Amino acid sequence: MSWTLAQRAHKMNPSVIREILKVTEKPGIISFAGGLPSPSTFPIEAMAEATARVFAQDGRAALQYSSSEGYGPLREWVAHDLKKLGMAISPDQVLITTGSQQGLDLIAKVLIDTGSRVLVETPTYLGALQAFTPMEPEFVSVNSDAEGVDVADFSAKAKGARFMYVLPNFQNPTGRTMSAERRVALAQAAAAAGVPLVEDNPYGDLWFDTPPPPALSSHVPENSVYLGSFSKILAPGLRLGYIVAPTAVMPKLLQAKQAADLHTPSFNQRIVAEVLKDGFIDRHVPTIRALYKRQCQAMLAALAEHCTGLLEWNAPDGGMFLWGRLPAGVDAVKLLPMAVEHNVAFVPGAAFYADHPDARSIRLSFVTASEEQIRTGVAALAKAIRQFQAG
Amino acid sequence: MSWTLAQRAHKMNPSVIREILKVTEKPGIISFAGGLPSPSTFPIEAMAEATARVFAQDGRAALQYSSSEGYGPLREWVAHDLKKLGMAISPDQVLITTGSQQGLDLIAKVLIDTGSRVLVETPTYLGALQAFTPMEPEFVSVNSDAEGVDVADFSAKAKGARFMYVLPNFQNPTGRTMSAERRVALAQAAAAAGVPLVEDNPYGDLWFDTPPPPALSSHVPENSVYLGSFSKILAPGLRLGYIVAPTAVMPKLLQAKQAADLHTPSFNQRIVAEVLKDGFIDRHVPTIRALYKRQCQAMLAALAEHCTGLLEWNAPDGGMFLWGRLPAGVDAVKLLPMAVEHNVAFVPGAAFYADHPDARSIRLSFVTASEEQIRTGVAALAKAIRQFQAG
Repeated sequence: MSWTLAQRAHKMNPSVIREILKVTEKPGIISFAGGLPSPSTFPIEAMAEATARVFAQDGRAALQYSSSEGYGPLREWVAHDLKKLGMAISPDQVLITTGSQQGLDLIAKVLIDTGSRVLVETPTYLGALQAFTPMEPEFVSVNSDAEGVDVADFSAKAKGARFMYVLPNFQNPTGRTMSAERRVALAQAAAAAGVPLVEDNPYGDLWFDTPPPPALSSHVPENSVYLGSFSKILAPGLRLGYIVAPTAVMPKLLQAKQAADLHTPSFNQRIVAEVLKDGFIDRHVPTIRALYKRQCQAMLAALAEHCTGLLEWNAPDGGMFLWGRLPAGVDAVKLLPMAVEHNVAFVPGAAFYADHPDARSIRLSFVTASEEQIRTGVAALAKAIRQFQAG
Repeated sequence: MSWTLAQRAHKMNPSVIREILKVTEKPGIISFAGGLPSPSTFPIEAMAEATARVFAQDGRAALQYSSSEGYGPLREWVAHDLKKLGMAISPDQVLITTGSQQGLDLIAKVLIDTGSRVLVETPTYLGALQAFTPMEPEFVSVNSDAEGVDVADFSAKAKGARFMYVLPNFQNPTGRTMSAERRVALAQAAAAAGVPLVEDNPYGDLWFDTPPPPALSSHVPENSVYLGSFSKILAPGLRLGYIVAPTAVMPKLLQAKQAADLHTPSFNQRIVAEVLKDGFIDRHVPTIRALYKRQCQAMLAALAEHCTGLLEWNAPDGGMFLWGRLPAGVDAVKLLPMAVEHNVAFVPGAAFYADHPDARSIRLSFVTASEEQIRTGVAALAKAIRQFQAG
């Protein structure tokens, strides 16, 4: 009747993953599909204690409106923490966001006009495609391999692009990490082409044996925006992330933030600042790394045992996901219902491509299921693939 | 250098109020400028207890990712609560947002194209203008008087508009309430013109003696979107609000929500659901009403004593603000620095007009300062006006 929707609304679609996950909502299913951190890693006791202290010491301020930039001590913590990635920034360059997803939304508003070219990896993070889509960009997939972005292809496609979106560490969906050499080369090529980099790093702390190379942003601080998150090192239900931006764009990002939700909950910001205060994170994150490493190894071992010849896969150096490729003729979307019958779920990789999806690719998360479930689930996946091949 | 901003970014500006408030950041100043609820009303003890229960009972779920729609029991509470406004809705029609400011952002994304006509009251809520501006509408001010929107002027300007934004209860900035008759007439005119209503109701619970008339949305549920908030009845630092929408627009609002920040913090939603569970709000809100009524009466009495002949003002039936008009020749923006010298601050009303600002109007908040401060501040305001007039 009366409702006329904006043009951009017609381009917005329900998350493919969300729709897929509905198929997998079945009691007893072993899910490698979700991107949910293991809830066993949530530091409930430390959070509860920090929250009680915030109520006792700063209750009224924690419950009041606060500045759009974010809570000062939290911004200071972020600026200090990022030194480990080779980034030398001031707290003024940190904007606290309602999850790093909101950072993507603000970047889209400030940098994308209808039809703007936006470069992305092949494949890329689906949530970024969703966050950028309402501003109606033209996505351009840049070729990528096991070391990350193909720099020559980037340079060939860079002209006139508003930015290139990159997730260099333990990428969602592929689990791959961009090599140090590739980072330097991409940063230089981006500066040469006059194309800013948007560097998304939600998983960077989740390395298994050695930390990833310095951030892309450390090489070209004036030509990049960096996104971070507390979702994977503390808890996603707090919705706390941040943007680091140079002065060329920070004022507009701040105005967009203010218009979007005034500020990120003061309450959550103060609780996290309180949790972080005594070096808690340096004791806590190693326990997450150790757990995810064990679970990743369990999945790799199970894949080697059950899926040799049925799947190709990579061995990530950290994060939450690995990436698989099914044999010729096996379509991941068609395989999924069969896998669900066998009580195991994954995400077909096609959802993660801006264009030319690879129908044989799949994303497997190794963090939500236990080691035992991982072994059972991988065996079930192998059965499903065999059944599919048997027709 | 490399940064090319989106066109919309050039239309976004720092909040005028934010800039003005910097002038007023002076130790010892009595501020009638801010829109901050009195922190003495924040139910810290109840919140702290509810939070402890959430950690104990549901800690892992409260810290995990959750659905974009929001937490079920909170959506049910909202649907039930809105019966008091004559609204008969199902929990499925409730989308939990990160403050009602985010509701405005989502509505803008889903309903506004560049150049779309968006009707607003005269004056209107500045935060709505800021939330809508990035989607580049053409704002059209509809004449308004003490009873609210001028329905004939609405009908004259309605053709082709995407929606009319209305804040009918204890409006920010004017404190005025739309009469029951005017609501029925506007709802009918809007339906006849095929123009949806966006009804914003952050202050509706803060009535002094009698509740406001039924919601506009109760008259035309399929032709309206309703925005509510927990900021004024519990605490703004939680950033919890909601949209109620008909099925014609809910799916798109939900997709926009998911792209914007995945979901509103699970943690905050569960805490508030826990606080609300035992009817706490029915005991708590009357204490806020009583406090704000006393403070409003103190301001009205002080205005009568000190400002007669120097200011015209209204007497709101609830909320946080009253609206004043300075004598001919007194410009509110120019008066402000003089008032600050006298240790009192207000917001010049010009910021709240989409066009043709009234330079003599001012907004006075009666909720942040104490009764004694209100008396002192109003006397100081009178002195500042006299000084201005004396040249």
